[in-house]
Amino acid sequence: MKTTPSPVSAKEFDELFKKVCNWNKWGPDDERGTLNYITGEHICAAAKLVQSGRSVSLALPINTVAGPDNPRPAAHYMVQGHDIDSDLGEPHFCTDFFASEFHGDCHTHIDALCHIAYKGKLYNGKSASEVTSQGPLLQDITAYAHGIVGRGVLLDIPRLRGVKWLEPGEAVTTEELEAAEKAQGVKLGEGDIFLFRTGHHRRRLELGPWDNSYDGEGKAGLHSEVMLMLHNRKVAAFLPDGDGETVPSNAEGIAYPVHILQINAMGMACADSLQFEELVAVCEEEKRWEFMVAITPLRLPRGTGSLFNPIAIF
Amino acid sequence: MKTTPSPVSAKEFDELFKKVCNWNKWGPDDERGTLNYITGEHICAAAKLVQSGRSVSLALPINTVAGPDNPRPAAHYMVQGHDIDSDLGEPHFCTDFFASEFHGDCHTHIDALCHIAYKGKLYNGKSASEVTSQGPLLQDITAYAHGIVGRGVLLDIPRLRGVKWLEPGEAVTTEELEAAEKAQGVKLGEGDIFLFRTGHHRRRLELGPWDNSYDGEGKAGLHSEVMLMLHNRKVAAFLPDGDGETVPSNAEGIAYPVHILQINAMGMACADSLQFEELVAVCEEEKRWEFMVAITPLRLPRGTGSLFNPIAIF
Amino acid sequence: MKTTPSPVSAKEFDELFKKVCNWNKWGPDDERGTLNYITGEHICAAAKLVQSGRSVSLALPINTVAGPDNPRPAAHYMVQGHDIDSDLGEPHFCTDFFASEFHGDCHTHIDALCHIAYKGKLYNGKSASEVTSQGPLLQDITAYAHGIVGRGVLLDIPRLRGVKWLEPGEAVTTEELEAAEKAQGVKLGEGDIFLFRTGHHRRRLELGPWDNSYDGEGKAGLHSEVMLMLHNRKVAAFLPDGDGETVPSNAEGIAYPVHILQINAMGMACADSLQFEELVAVCEEEKRWEFMVAITPLRLPRGTGSLFNPIAIF
Amino acid sequence: MKTTPSPVSAKEFDELFKKVCNWNKWGPDDERGTLNYITGEHICAAAKLVQSGRSVSLALPINTVAGPDNPRPAAHYMVQGHDIDSDLGEPHFCTDFFASEFHGDCHTHIDALCHIAYKGKLYNGKSASEVTSQGPLLQDITAYAHGIVGRGVLLDIPRLRGVKWLEPGEAVTTEELEAAEKAQGVKLGEGDIFLFRTGHHRRRLELGPWDNSYDGEGKAGLHSEVMLMLHNRKVAAFLPDGDGETVPSNAEGIAYPVHILQINAMGMACADSLQFEELVAVCEEEKRWEFMVAITPLRLPRGTGSLFNPIAIF
Repeated sequence: MKTTPSPVSAKEFDELFKKVCNWNKWGPDDERGTLNYITGEHICAAAKLVQSGRSVSLALPINTVAGPDNPRPAAHYMVQGHDIDSDLGEPHFCTDFFASEFHGDCHTHIDALCHIAYKGKLYNGKSASEVTSQGPLLQDITAYAHGIVGRGVLLDIPRLRGVKWLEPGEAVTTEELEAAEKAQGVKLGEGDIFLFRTGHHRRRLELGPWDNSYDGEGKAGLHSEVMLMLHNRKVAAFLPDGDGETVPSNAEGIAYPVHILQINAMGMACADSLQFEELVAVCEEEKRWEFMVAITPLRLPRGTGSLFNPIAIF
Repeated sequence: MKTTPSPVSAKEFDELFKKVCNWNKWGPDDERGTLNYITGEHICAAAKLVQSGRSVSLALPINTVAGPDNPRPAAHYMVQGHDIDSDLGEPHFCTDFFASEFHGDCHTHIDALCHIAYKGKLYNGKSASEVTSQGPLLQDITAYAHGIVGRGVLLDIPRLRGVKWLEPGEAVTTEELEAAEKAQGVKLGEGDIFLFRTGHHRRRLELGPWDNSYDGEGKAGLHSEVMLMLHNRKVAAFLPDGDGETVPSNAEGIAYPVHILQINAMGMACADSLQFEELVAVCEEEKRWEFMVAITPLRLPRGTGSLFNPIAIF
Repeated sequence: MKTTPSPVSAKEFDELFKKVCNWNKWGPDDERGTLNYITGEHICAAAKLVQSGRSVSLALPINTVAGPDNPRPAAHYMVQGHDIDSDLGEPHFCTDFFASEFHGDCHTHIDALCHIAYKGKLYNGKSASEVTSQGPLLQDITAYAHGIVGRGVLLDIPRLRGVKWLEPGEAVTTEELEAAEKAQGVKLGEGDIFLFRTGHHRRRLELGPWDNSYDGEGKAGLHSEVMLMLHNRKVAAFLPDGDGETVPSNAEGIAYPVHILQINAMGMACADSLQFEELVAVCEEEKRWEFMVAITPLRLPRGTGSLFNPIAIF
Repeated sequence: MKTTPSPVSAKEFDELFKKVCNWNKWGPDDERGTLNYITGEHICAAAKLVQSGRSVSLALPINTVAGPDNPRPAAHYMVQGHDIDSDLGEPHFCTDFFASEFHGDCHTHIDALCHIAYKGKLYNGKSASEVTSQGPLLQDITAYAHGIVGRGVLLDIPRLRGVKWLEPGEAVTTEELEAAEKAQGVKLGEGDIFLFRTGHHRRRLELGPWDNSYDGEGKAGLHSEVMLMLHNRKVAAFLPDGDGETVPSNAEGIAYPVHILQINAMGMACADSLQFEELVAVCEEEKRWEFMVAITPLRLPRGTGSLFNPIAIF
């Protein structure tokens, strides 16, 4: 399996953008994008996958310690502990405060469609200027308020390759995803939630965090051409353990080609920085790589995304 | 149906505490309390309730505007909008910052078991001093990290009474809950997630927010004796549209008797300030008041609770 | 002394704006506005007023409790107290976290010149669009980074009138300020820092906080025409105990006429929400209403203002 | 001049603590410690040093970018910019939000006396347990609410040594401070505010930030024995460009010996992380190293310290 596939030229990237573009497919004011692929029938079918009753978190513990991939650690403080004199009355409540600038490399979060502007446009061709200093006037995270429920399919590339993790810069191609499907006996289809594992978090656990940005050491991810497969398959949502990008980019002169194609062109519900270490153990025990998924972003008006804790239910 | 049932005396409250107390039932270090009632079979059975594939949020939109029941509004600011010159490069990301002291009357949240100390003790008899200025050393919200999934049963008291909402101070008794079960054709049982509707949020929508605290106008809730029913039925979790309490208290000299009994004595997973206005419409359409529920608190180490967005799936 | 002087018409307001406008007076890129009136000689003269060595804070305690004039209370939490076991080592540090959206009616703060846009323009005619979602690109609070030092002159209107405070809606005219100067034996002059007392805070202490905004009960302040006096006198900075505005406005159809004229037209360093209760006691004891003032805003790049604690030194 | 003076043994440190200890010197409830040395006369004398009217900030710009000495960057976001449609009315205000966990190595701040507990005690022998999860019940930063004003004396060690800065680990002795006094023609005396320059910030500007903690590369500072000199001279306050500490410590087995002696034993008003690069330029021009200083911490009840912007006035 080649791990350094041919880069995409700027011209090819433009063509790819056009091929996978869903603008106006679901009307000019659509804010759900590829979630439109998930029907009630898909959800009922997903529920049928619940056969043992186990649920597994796909989120990292919220990270309040600064590090090379965490320049903006979440802040978490007690408002009051239980150290106060009992003469304050019974019962005594302890409470806390939590704050986060959550679009970071080590915070498990989901992006709203407004998160990305490309050439001055948001998904569906809306103007980027709709996102002001007071937040997005459209395509905010409340488009997903009622949750995203469906069939999740994990494609585990390190498992396929027989390695612990992919190294930074390695790109996964359509061929390799198809090989993983074959090896695991699953097939990504219409309305599915695609869980993509590069082993990013396992590498992080074993080697420690690293700067995986464009200024740093990079990360493993998808080859840009995979978007064509996801488009053709009518995949509804994308949950990777990194953020899906191969860094450095394999699209010539284009940073974040996967984000641009998925979110901006396709309108795909995309998340960042999940962890599948608990999930893979359960998959191996259950001998299956498909399950019900429940995703419930916070209901935050004008949010550009949300911290969340997606779960797989077996 | 009497709406001002007899108050519970201080002595009766102590007896009630002992009767419903689950301390050491699941071992000295248990942190899951009544969630232990939910088995894999319960979860599989809950999944079978997914028959139409609709999902409904049970959360309020996050409330960033101060008000009589919101002295600590959540803070939400843009880190960057899309107003910056395009010479910053492509694509352009908009991001935001979110902060909350979430244990408030109008923030949909779930409590960790450590949230309440009574007579110097936490659930399971642990010392309140385990919750320091740096947060709880045990019983934090990560006990629920893998989500809470199960059968949800809504008991809709305004529907039973034929009113829009219960008025502040009105208490719901065991008899009334049983009447609601009968009227709706459901029965709360072992491992169930109990959704309790007083119409709190509908009142708020129609009359505007009010100070529902002990210093204010109060709210409708459960009579303390209902805890005995919940204990005997082995209910696993509690999701009310207020916070479950009747204010003023109907337990003599005891503030927050429902919290004390549920969280401190029983170790029950309890939430606050949900809204069921979207849910009741779907229940009427679906002609059923039971459904699958997915609850996914943020995975916050040392959290005393979490904002969340629980969903019902039909 | 008339307390309800004639209102200013929209046309008169426009003329007033032109008369007091300092745009381009100190060059097209000036960011210090009327602070340019303070020379080294003024500062040396101010220092000569230090004769007893007393210093007095002009700030309110930072207000973390929500109220009718505090919809956005400051947040203050411990990061760690001293409750942690000594095995963490010696010495032990307690630390805290502080957050504020400080442009509020009960937070003592100073405004940067960029704070106000009027008809699409900032002070000096710069475009309002220079203030993006990432903050002001010019006229931020760092223009005052090296502090504002000079002669402070308090004009105490309740003292002149023989009342405890002015009532909401009452406006102070040029004639009344001149009468106060006479009564106190001081005269506001070039380069001076003008402390203007309506007794706002004393009213707040005695009657409790009230909603003093345009939607609420209002507040006492300056008549718009006073700006002509301040302009002619070449006053350098303005420190009021409310925010200087009379609410409701006495300028026809114009909200915040004083802010517009002072900050936008004149480029005056203006603060909000000081308290002079400790100051007036010292003034009476010292029998003088002039003193050295030291103002040191936080050195916050791209700040639209700053919380601060100005002091008077006698 | 020796730059690696003899270390202080644990026993010598205990003796030093006793020698410089001011507990109960100003009564059992004193919260001002060595600020008691500053009399009205000292302040008047300090004001006489204002001869040219220049003022200079001693603060770093507030640092919102993470780095090796900034694991907890301050957070600064716009609440609203000026990008909103003008139909929101005139004038338009831009506002921001600011948050900080400010006791960090690159945030210019002042410590409250409660900041440090040693062997379970605060300054004046108060119990460390007075600092709870809700903040200090005594010795908070409001003890300095009315500002600290006095004569500042800068001792510039790199100037004495003819170097750009001191290297991490280098300790400055009493002898060297006396040599600096001689070279600069000044003498630290009773009630003075001591500005101590190691060139920490110049090194930072030229070489970039480094981890200067006990786990990192360390920093230059005072030898522990200097505390005896500061005690004998009755110095009132301490403003260093690092935090005064030599790291690694030159007191055997004791971390932060300077903080323990200054804050805990002496009750000295101490700040951290100032910068004197602008100041030294003015000192050279003015040919003097003494000036008036104005320090105005935010008036934050229960604050363990405060960000601030101290200024020198010439």
